[in-house]
Amino acid sequence: MSLQIDNVVESTKSRSGIIDCDVHPYPKNTDEIRSYMKQPWRDRYSGGGRGFFGNPVHGSRLDANPPHGGPAGSDPAFLQEQLLDKYGIAHAILLPRAFCNLHPDPDFGTAIAAAFNDWLADTWLGAYNAHGVFKGSITIAHQDPLAAAREIERWAGHTHFVQVMTDSGARAPFGQRHYLPIYEVCAKYGLPFAIHPGTDGMGINIQPSPGYPTHYIEWHTCLSLGFQAHLVSFITEGVFERFPDFQVVLVEGGVSWLPALMWRLDQEYKALRYEVPWLKRRPSDYLRDHVRISSQPLERPDNDQYLLQMLEMMDAEHILMFASDYPHWDFDSPTRAFPRLPESLRKRIFHDNAAELYHL
Amino acid sequence: MSLQIDNVVESTKSRSGIIDCDVHPYPKNTDEIRSYMKQPWRDRYSGGGRGFFGNPVHGSRLDANPPHGGPAGSDPAFLQEQLLDKYGIAHAILLPRAFCNLHPDPDFGTAIAAAFNDWLADTWLGAYNAHGVFKGSITIAHQDPLAAAREIERWAGHTHFVQVMTDSGARAPFGQRHYLPIYEVCAKYGLPFAIHPGTDGMGINIQPSPGYPTHYIEWHTCLSLGFQAHLVSFITEGVFERFPDFQVVLVEGGVSWLPALMWRLDQEYKALRYEVPWLKRRPSDYLRDHVRISSQPLERPDNDQYLLQMLEMMDAEHILMFASDYPHWDFDSPTRAFPRLPESLRKRIFHDNAAELYHL
Repeated sequence: MSLQIDNVVESTKSRSGIIDCDVHPYPKNTDEIRSYMKQPWRDRYSGGGRGFFGNPVHGSRLDANPPHGGPAGSDPAFLQEQLLDKYGIAHAILLPRAFCNLHPDPDFGTAIAAAFNDWLADTWLGAYNAHGVFKGSITIAHQDPLAAAREIERWAGHTHFVQVMTDSGARAPFGQRHYLPIYEVCAKYGLPFAIHPGTDGMGINIQPSPGYPTHYIEWHTCLSLGFQAHLVSFITEGVFERFPDFQVVLVEGGVSWLPALMWRLDQEYKALRYEVPWLKRRPSDYLRDHVRISSQPLERPDNDQYLLQMLEMMDAEHILMFASDYPHWDFDSPTRAFPRLPESLRKRIFHDNAAELYHL
Repeated sequence: MSLQIDNVVESTKSRSGIIDCDVHPYPKNTDEIRSYMKQPWRDRYSGGGRGFFGNPVHGSRLDANPPHGGPAGSDPAFLQEQLLDKYGIAHAILLPRAFCNLHPDPDFGTAIAAAFNDWLADTWLGAYNAHGVFKGSITIAHQDPLAAAREIERWAGHTHFVQVMTDSGARAPFGQRHYLPIYEVCAKYGLPFAIHPGTDGMGINIQPSPGYPTHYIEWHTCLSLGFQAHLVSFITEGVFERFPDFQVVLVEGGVSWLPALMWRLDQEYKALRYEVPWLKRRPSDYLRDHVRISSQPLERPDNDQYLLQMLEMMDAEHILMFASDYPHWDFDSPTRAFPRLPESLRKRIFHDNAAELYHL
């Protein structure tokens, strides 16, 4: 080190020649900067722009790392053992995480979506899927609705693709008109449109709160607010009247907010229906025919009775579908996520509602 | 008309001289454009940029226009007759609508806030207020937190100003650090900080959903989502630990969303408390000491029992305070807004919680 410093100081040219006013020094690696940090920042700093609203603890269950290597959730055999066999799961609806909807370049986003679909068809929905246990989601880049519609058409006849999916991050609520070509194709092929959290406030997507939140706990808690805005948009824009066969699935967006939001929207509708004359029913009346909600992360108040009341209020019997979010950190176990349910309700949540929606 | 056209056509200079590529023709009045519109647009178009997310029907009760002129809510004597005397209301907490927090120029915003405060002190809290029935809110322009703190100091000793207020529209969630000078002064003088809907997505303020909603019913329904983001921000940023005497009032932001949001946040906290180590209690444990919610617009599901269950879940006994929103269109009547309540709960919602908070 000292030799290099001498070299710089003793160079005559470096002291009398050109002055360059914009030169970038890089650390040799991230650890050089980390060594100047105290905890918890040392553990959390990953260099560059990475780690933006990343989980500060760990994003996946630590026990979900496959014994033969690769990231959690990348080994179908281990997933079968740890999830399907352990809990007696007949079908797993697969939602890959492509994050393609945050790219400014829609062609790049569309290319990522297509690659994920080809990969999923070749692997999890192909060679690994002799018994048809896995059912897949067609990833789309919704920032190019016409290209997204073409991508859906490309897979619509596939036996094991059962829905279309995108992340909740967006530049506009999902009921708005430029998205309609996507829903037209979904309705045509009977493919539900699933929204999964992610990319909110990232890339080209707007943060669905009054400005950027500070912490992951805040960002993650408020993900459910974006879902609520999307649902209100779908209903008030009349998408379900325009496409009577169109169905929406809200995945991992929270559960218990539904009654309050629908009570509020129904009430507004009483006074303001003049503004949305295409609605033929009360807003909440569209839920049973057009909306399904997956259960994870299920809220668990101290008092189980409160949750059971909430499930009744939201018509969980027809609307709620179990999901685990395997292999993520906030995994909901089929045996522990819910309090004891009446058997008929349990059966609808853990099987029937999904079987009917996905024709399983 | 034909004469004027002739003049233009026959002018030689106008046909052979300069070409000006940016000239603006104005209609003589808004009705000229309206006459080319069909309904409902003809009724709703008000020219220029006005009417942006304005109520498409009417913003105030039609029967609230004072008999001697002026807009609804501008005549204390008529308000006394139509609201206070009719329903036996002992105190009305006044929240003027200054909309000063949407101005790009913070000095202009602060000047509007100060003018509203001087006006309120001179009128409703002055000459009209011999019996102390009216209690006022100190309007602030929160885009200049230091100036806002000074404005609060200016009124802190006034007998009839009982809280600070701002609109929910903002450039960042309200727990964030640049706002702290406001809360320090609020805590110092025991003045609750009230948030009222408005200016979301207007002026300099960010729209708290994934992009701009389309209709007023959508915008208005989703106002409650911004409140939820602000509340999560206050809690997770640790504002209530920093200022143990600081209290927040959420006015007209909805009621029944509270249990679901707190269940969700408490659950996230179990896994992520490492990120917010300044929190000494579960997030929901801060509510009773630091947060009050006003009731209007109270959600009214078809089944009254559901609302009563929700009130129990949210600890309405300690957190909820009645409000009417007079003279606005979605006014809640003291006699009709709620289903029948147990007398002890009714008394706390309609009187005690507010009396304790505002020292009435």
